[in-house]
Amino acid sequence: MTLVVQKFGGTSVADADRIRAVADHIARTRRAGDDVVVVVSAMGKATDDLLHLAEQVSRTRPGRELDMLLTSGERISMALLCMALAERGVAAASFTGSQAGIITDTIHTKARILEVKGDRLRAALAEAVVPVVAGFQGVSSTRDITTLGRGGSDTTAVALAAALGADRCEIYTDVSGVFSADPRLVPDARKLPRISFEEMLEIAATGGRVLALRSVEFARNHHVPLLVRSSFTWEPGTVITEEDPSMEQPVVSAVTHDTSQAKITLAGVADRPGIAASLFRHLADRSINVDMIVQNISHAGTTDISFTVPLDDVAASRQVAESMLEELSAAEVVTDEDVAMVSLVGAGMKTHPGVTATMFETLAAEGINIEMISTSPIRISCMVRSAVAERAVQVLHRAFELGSAHS
Amino acid sequence: MTLVVQKFGGTSVADADRIRAVADHIARTRRAGDDVVVVVSAMGKATDDLLHLAEQVSRTRPGRELDMLLTSGERISMALLCMALAERGVAAASFTGSQAGIITDTIHTKARILEVKGDRLRAALAEAVVPVVAGFQGVSSTRDITTLGRGGSDTTAVALAAALGADRCEIYTDVSGVFSADPRLVPDARKLPRISFEEMLEIAATGGRVLALRSVEFARNHHVPLLVRSSFTWEPGTVITEEDPSMEQPVVSAVTHDTSQAKITLAGVADRPGIAASLFRHLADRSINVDMIVQNISHAGTTDISFTVPLDDVAASRQVAESMLEELSAAEVVTDEDVAMVSLVGAGMKTHPGVTATMFETLAAEGINIEMISTSPIRISCMVRSAVAERAVQVLHRAFELGSAHS
Repeated sequence: MTLVVQKFGGTSVADADRIRAVADHIARTRRAGDDVVVVVSAMGKATDDLLHLAEQVSRTRPGRELDMLLTSGERISMALLCMALAERGVAAASFTGSQAGIITDTIHTKARILEVKGDRLRAALAEAVVPVVAGFQGVSSTRDITTLGRGGSDTTAVALAAALGADRCEIYTDVSGVFSADPRLVPDARKLPRISFEEMLEIAATGGRVLALRSVEFARNHHVPLLVRSSFTWEPGTVITEEDPSMEQPVVSAVTHDTSQAKITLAGVADRPGIAASLFRHLADRSINVDMIVQNISHAGTTDISFTVPLDDVAASRQVAESMLEELSAAEVVTDEDVAMVSLVGAGMKTHPGVTATMFETLAAEGINIEMISTSPIRISCMVRSAVAERAVQVLHRAFELGSAHS
Repeated sequence: MTLVVQKFGGTSVADADRIRAVADHIARTRRAGDDVVVVVSAMGKATDDLLHLAEQVSRTRPGRELDMLLTSGERISMALLCMALAERGVAAASFTGSQAGIITDTIHTKARILEVKGDRLRAALAEAVVPVVAGFQGVSSTRDITTLGRGGSDTTAVALAAALGADRCEIYTDVSGVFSADPRLVPDARKLPRISFEEMLEIAATGGRVLALRSVEFARNHHVPLLVRSSFTWEPGTVITEEDPSMEQPVVSAVTHDTSQAKITLAGVADRPGIAASLFRHLADRSINVDMIVQNISHAGTTDISFTVPLDDVAASRQVAESMLEELSAAEVVTDEDVAMVSLVGAGMKTHPGVTATMFETLAAEGINIEMISTSPIRISCMVRSAVAERAVQVLHRAFELGSAHS
């Protein structure tokens, strides 16, 4: 018998109507003969509402209590979903992260899963009961309630699929799959029927918002095939799975963009060994996630070091950099928030070296200046002015013939 | 050191302002040198909102899932309260019913407490951390989330006070104590500074809404002194404690009324042994709580049996009674919802036999007809038409000089 994990995000269970639609879908899956484990997020904007309430109550918001607060959201959605399933004659039982045996470390608000026990879920399945599990939450080794941070419900779903040996993990959301570009920017963007974990990782890392990077990594490491689908249209979605070596890979699968980064430049840095190491150690100590790093060729014994950080970390990064001006013998710190990353992702790139050249030529022909470049075996990312990012995505999408007219 | 359990009801934590006021009070208690364990209800109308949502989602609402749903409410209020305490420099930690070790039976939506472990609460107290515990909820012997039913948060507070050996249990609510009558009916009703558990039990059982009967019973059985106070005015409230045999008891402490009962009469019942037993066994099998029972003197081999039930149970009770018409050789079933119970409660009544006569004379002088009577050693209850209940309370309050003019 097939075992499927179905995860429904906040928009999929946003109100009573949506919850009933989700229950109908789960009931259909059961009637088709599959075993199902369900993972749900909190309803719609429930989490935002709770955070707003917390802000009204106190300026001090300890992580342990934030986690206690936020984990109430999934209790509500999962209990309601179980009621709707009961009305449809589907035996179901809700389980908190703790009851499901999702054991995490003790880092509140961004805990990592240490172990998935899942005994009660297996017992429920053995009794033909559909377990409905709270996403995003677990219980720490010290028996406190924890949350898994951003994208946590996807991570819960994938972790459960791995622990229970599920045949696949279906992620239901408000988009119908992974596209060759953001359809809001590129009207003829094409839904990709199938992509590899590696491509999905690059897409998630460079601005594709469909799946959280972390859950894709987890799925790849545990060989859990993913299916991303819409819970509004229920149309076929995108399958994310191991690369199939017997098939030829598309050279480029998708164009992504990311406007959530800023560029920070330390100008006139003394070009001595160890300078960069010292800077990035200090940034890491502040838990600042540096993405791209470029160091220019040295002129007259000094160089410029530029790096990108999430917009939220600009102030802290600037502080770190400025505190090191003397140590680095640097002239000044320049921050630039009007930047965007535009990336090409494709598994076939590994064997098609011409992609970079085509990308640069396409952007040059549009008069778009490239400020920084970074590459992986299956990705090329260029930093451009944020004002031209949308146009860059559109011309690259056309140049690589990714639209539905070419499928 | 004194250990106090402080319980705050839904109106006491209804919004951010109220939660901050409660945090201020707990901080004051700590500064005064007392150890505190806090119990909170869900915020204001949160429980009603969740029930309304459940009604929108499904007509089938299994108890297990209702309990999962409703227990989210206290998570929110207790986490917010801990944040407000943290802002005031008071170390606090929230605990679910499960984390607090409140073990119940498996009867969802009205579970009974089997055991209070409280290990984590003791550990928190030992580290000078204020435990903030979710009221109304526990975990069953089969590890499912349960709720304690009506008045559940009061029961949680009293059970914790008993288990932890607290010096007293303070119940904070939106009234300032227990009154000699409902102040909305009797403007000069007097707040009672001190009453016995027995009086409070009778008051709670006959319409006094301040405390749930069950929590008072628990407090009496475990010798936990109660204090009922307002969290809006913080003025001195009512102490409920063991009867002090060294003091003379007031003859009458309070007049109560209850309009939530209906009268059901089986007319023309064959007057045979066992008839009444059979009827009330069938009612009990349907979990219908019968309060007052009166059987008239037999005339010509038949009699009338009248009993009172909560208004919610009228339809079911009528069904039971009608299904037994043949077995009881009864003529008909008559239901009457326009009735009210008016009661006098007072520990001194035991030794003052004149109270009943005064009560009857007072009502008669007002032309108020008494339809049924029931008594306990410290209570007399009369059933009257609901239309005259308010006047009955007022004249009795005056006749027994219970008002503040007489205190």
